[in-house]
Amino acid sequence: MSDQIKYVLDESRIPKFWYNIAADLPKPPPPVLHPGTHQPIGPADLAPLFPTALIMQEVSTERQIEIPEPVRDVYRQWRPSPLYRARRLEKALETPAKIYYKYEGVSPAGSHKPNTAVAQAFYNKEAGVKKLTTETGAGQWGSALAFAGSVFGLEVKVFMVRVSYNQKPYRRALMETYGATCVPSPSNETQSGKSILAQRADHPGSLGIAISEAVEVAAQNEDTKYSLGSVLNHVLTHQTVIGQEAMAQLDMAGDYPDIIVGCTGGGSNFAGIAFPFIGAQLRGGRKVRVVAVEPSACPSLTRGKYAFDFGDTAHLTPLVKMHTLGSTFTPPGFHAGGLRYHGMAPMVSHLKELGLIEAVAYTQMKCFEAGVQFARTEGIVPAPEAIHAVLGAIDEALRCREEGKSKTILFNLSGHGHFDMQAYIEYFAGNLKDLAYDENELAMALAGLPSVKEAA
Amino acid sequence: MSDQIKYVLDESRIPKFWYNIAADLPKPPPPVLHPGTHQPIGPADLAPLFPTALIMQEVSTERQIEIPEPVRDVYRQWRPSPLYRARRLEKALETPAKIYYKYEGVSPAGSHKPNTAVAQAFYNKEAGVKKLTTETGAGQWGSALAFAGSVFGLEVKVFMVRVSYNQKPYRRALMETYGATCVPSPSNETQSGKSILAQRADHPGSLGIAISEAVEVAAQNEDTKYSLGSVLNHVLTHQTVIGQEAMAQLDMAGDYPDIIVGCTGGGSNFAGIAFPFIGAQLRGGRKVRVVAVEPSACPSLTRGKYAFDFGDTAHLTPLVKMHTLGSTFTPPGFHAGGLRYHGMAPMVSHLKELGLIEAVAYTQMKCFEAGVQFARTEGIVPAPEAIHAVLGAIDEALRCREEGKSKTILFNLSGHGHFDMQAYIEYFAGNLKDLAYDENELAMALAGLPSVKEAA
Repeated sequence: MSDQIKYVLDESRIPKFWYNIAADLPKPPPPVLHPGTHQPIGPADLAPLFPTALIMQEVSTERQIEIPEPVRDVYRQWRPSPLYRARRLEKALETPAKIYYKYEGVSPAGSHKPNTAVAQAFYNKEAGVKKLTTETGAGQWGSALAFAGSVFGLEVKVFMVRVSYNQKPYRRALMETYGATCVPSPSNETQSGKSILAQRADHPGSLGIAISEAVEVAAQNEDTKYSLGSVLNHVLTHQTVIGQEAMAQLDMAGDYPDIIVGCTGGGSNFAGIAFPFIGAQLRGGRKVRVVAVEPSACPSLTRGKYAFDFGDTAHLTPLVKMHTLGSTFTPPGFHAGGLRYHGMAPMVSHLKELGLIEAVAYTQMKCFEAGVQFARTEGIVPAPEAIHAVLGAIDEALRCREEGKSKTILFNLSGHGHFDMQAYIEYFAGNLKDLAYDENELAMALAGLPSVKEAA
Repeated sequence: MSDQIKYVLDESRIPKFWYNIAADLPKPPPPVLHPGTHQPIGPADLAPLFPTALIMQEVSTERQIEIPEPVRDVYRQWRPSPLYRARRLEKALETPAKIYYKYEGVSPAGSHKPNTAVAQAFYNKEAGVKKLTTETGAGQWGSALAFAGSVFGLEVKVFMVRVSYNQKPYRRALMETYGATCVPSPSNETQSGKSILAQRADHPGSLGIAISEAVEVAAQNEDTKYSLGSVLNHVLTHQTVIGQEAMAQLDMAGDYPDIIVGCTGGGSNFAGIAFPFIGAQLRGGRKVRVVAVEPSACPSLTRGKYAFDFGDTAHLTPLVKMHTLGSTFTPPGFHAGGLRYHGMAPMVSHLKELGLIEAVAYTQMKCFEAGVQFARTEGIVPAPEAIHAVLGAIDEALRCREEGKSKTILFNLSGHGHFDMQAYIEYFAGNLKDLAYDENELAMALAGLPSVKEAA
């Protein structure tokens, strides 16, 4: 039997630094703009929302950011996470390719999200913050921050997109078990929420709205800060422990990836696996093809416009340049809730513009087919977000079979699907179908992008 | 911050042998009897249900049973499992005790069950078996066997207690994702099921009934064998990888347990953590207090009779001497489905009679309170079965505080609660209460025990 192989690192090999790709870029990304003046903002503008340490990381161009020892202490619960060689999957695909996957579902919350949640909770605790607010879609981020809050003794309030809140009571229960409060969004607790509900009392919510609510609460309360689970530079940087460990584990295997695949919603797990390798390439190392996989029903990288836009629906955030479908765009209700965001991390968007990464979009039925094949060969049921990466890796492996090439493929299995089994139930029952966004809605959302005059 | 500590073993330290406690007993356990003749059965009597290799393990008195390399290959996916020092929990309890827990929730199916499922699937595959049948209550065992079947290419059919089948669609979906078939029991697919349904069309099912159905199908089909997730000697033996690893990990910590705690339904996770330590004691090693924790609503060890009884409701199994509530006993619908079995593993019962272990019974509300405290300190949400062990460990730690003693407590955290969040939802909503069994029903079930004349 050709069995899977696990590559394990000793816990002394948990990275001591996060890798900041800003240090190695051939060209810096565009500045972040004030929503009123359209002028670049400074650290002080972000102070109501984030503690100083995180703001400094957000704008840092230092290559290495030291991971505080208390954060590494908490990482030790599940890190270093395993890297697997998917030999059972390779055999099923009859591919000459070697497929490796980094498995982040071993964390307490079941995904990569605690890598940044723990860091953010630590810095907020250090800054004397008592309470964190955040948004969550599918619930992976909310439960990660709930876990991190319980470790550092911070109150956590999660605005959960209402449709997910109703569909995923188990995710909500997980957050509450960790001691967090979970509120369906739009809610009556904020002006942003109230104004949405006034227009439509049964509004299903969106990540953009939930962000507005969480930001509003943080901005108005002295002891409260806001925490974001993706998109921002410091969040992506925290996730680079994934890629750094994977690099060391592939080194154990005597291997190096030709192709790296990650799924992209806001971009953080993708950045986590890919940035350390892209950075090595930028510093003169080996070239690697990097493929971002997104859902075709919310295709910011493949169909969005690279433009300045708001991160939220109520336009409380600064303007960032990113691949966006427009902040009013509402994707259809496909199952990968973590990939239902109108924008893409500015840093990921910038790399796309620089030609350092590729992007591809998949429909959900083929993704679930890949997810089931993966479960039956590798024994792990992937989250609906992660099956996009699984399919991306399978597609590359099948191309290798056609071309008779034995390439090395690395992908990030960002989380397990234990809280998403309803999606598998619907898939098996034949109730799932491919969903398309409304072309008119996309056109309107793009037409509504803020008009920003860029400096030359 | 006093943080938890993780003790990790290199994968070369996955045990090479299962430990068989039968080799070290001061007195052998009573024989297994034929249900018709009441005479001791031989290996041939079990041949319709199990492959020879497993039957030989069932009756073996060899201390060490070599783990086949292909089984260790599959174990490598998640073994060695981590041992944690629960320092965050110790601090919250203000106890001078040291609390360690072995975490088996890292397996693909989320519990200790794959330790034996993989072994059983391997030996059946070797014997040319095509299909396995089994029963499941909460679904941990069914999903473990579904996983193991997918690895070795065996068809798996799971009879799932109907009330759980309806309450836990996610567990069912997990089995189906691994490729198994899951049928609510009682079903119309067997004579046992039909006769129960004829009496009561909406019968909620029980483990005893589901066992009858699975055994019946296996006995009637040449290419089909039966697989049991607990109770039998070989199953308990397979679980001893848990205790052997824990012993090595405690050795790394320079420690040895004064007290070992495990929850008991059929007895397999308890045996897994405890038997290697009890064996060491029996061979002249250090004495250890071993506490089995069971639900007070299904208290076989604390309220059952030590007598010969059937393992199933339709009386298709041999007679085994065990602590039993009677094979017709139906426990109330508390949430730890894995602990809702009328009997106890004969080997665990025997150790209880020999005075080598203690038993205690807890009601469910206090267990959930302990589970939530554990989640908020240690970051892992335990399964409803495992919270019994958590509470057992907490109680011992609080006794240490009262007595001012710094004892070393080891418990088995047998699985995570990701598929059991409904129980937590009901707990937080205040809809959970302590349930008691019906004293009259217990008296009747005990009165109905088969009358067996034992050899002197």
